[in-house]
Amino acid sequence: MMTKERCVREPGLDPARPRNAAATRSAILDAARRRFVTESYDDVGMRDVAGDVGVDAALVSRYFGSKEELFLEVLGGCGDISHITESERGTFGERIAEELVDGPVNQSKLAALLIMVRSASAGRSGELVRRYVQEHFYGPFCAWIGGPDATVRCTLASALMIGTALSRDLNASMNIDDDQRAVLRRRLAATLQALIDD
Amino acid sequence: MMTKERCVREPGLDPARPRNAAATRSAILDAARRRFVTESYDDVGMRDVAGDVGVDAALVSRYFGSKEELFLEVLGGCGDISHITESERGTFGERIAEELVDGPVNQSKLAALLIMVRSASAGRSGELVRRYVQEHFYGPFCAWIGGPDATVRCTLASALMIGTALSRDLNASMNIDDDQRAVLRRRLAATLQALIDD
Repeated sequence: MMTKERCVREPGLDPARPRNAAATRSAILDAARRRFVTESYDDVGMRDVAGDVGVDAALVSRYFGSKEELFLEVLGGCGDISHITESERGTFGERIAEELVDGPVNQSKLAALLIMVRSASAGRSGELVRRYVQEHFYGPFCAWIGGPDATVRCTLASALMIGTALSRDLNASMNIDDDQRAVLRRRLAATLQALIDD
Repeated sequence: MMTKERCVREPGLDPARPRNAAATRSAILDAARRRFVTESYDDVGMRDVAGDVGVDAALVSRYFGSKEELFLEVLGGCGDISHITESERGTFGERIAEELVDGPVNQSKLAALLIMVRSASAGRSGELVRRYVQEHFYGPFCAWIGGPDATVRCTLASALMIGTALSRDLNASMNIDDDQRAVLRRRLAATLQALIDD
């Protein structure tokens, strides 16, 4: 039998308690993210994810539904683009460059991005990913850019953002001194802004 | 017992025969690439790779040495950058844009790139990857660019190249008509060229 204290240390085993439910949900999501990053979509089982957290597979289904729904929830960790589309257009390049060069690395965002690029070419997960990013990213971003060649502008600005995010760990050169870091931020900002404006 | 005919259909089981040796080597490399794309470095065993090809693990070691060496060989599938550094600087943007937008998707190159971005943050494989790309990519590319802010230019041009390569499958918008495709190629070329020149 669980005491309340034990429940606080190993949260989420009782979904009736809201605080624990939220903690369990979050633990399941973290475990799923780790699985989807290291294994292919087809190889990940709901039971594996449940096992990682120490809960029953039925609980994972109760919280997230099917594996597809759990997968989409993990992709959602990439965030939406409201921070782009609800802000001033003239500062787009500056804001994104600051986030990409100086912002803290958001691990769940990076993991979702990795899962996306990795799954995009593969069967069922590829379909899910392409539909997801079209709806949540490329579609609204392209509409926000607007004007002639919006699709091309959107494609290039997105590619530069994705490539910069993904090469932060890869490129040891990004461990540069503060002066060069400022140059990098300025040039990235100018390039991104030009890609949507010029 | 194997007949010579069987050896041709299932090549490489006898490393003494050069043609078969090459085919086996290539089959092992393909299997390793598939493993490293879908599983984390730590999870891939030489025995798994050998099993995929139907050869003995000792044969894999004989061809490639250790797991580290096999991994580096897979990364080598990303190609070197001699096609950049041995060509005319003034056509850099144009050449890369054509390859990235209209060139055939090179699966082993794409797989190596995926493995790199995915492994860059993780333990031993992260070290191997960062050292590898520094030696074979960022280092020579940066030296070729030269001049002030070469590191920054190299970082941004690389990020745009990586992001474009990785979003080809992800971004359904890249299935555009020929006119927009030409616009994409032109804008990408101009942006890449400006990143190394201006």
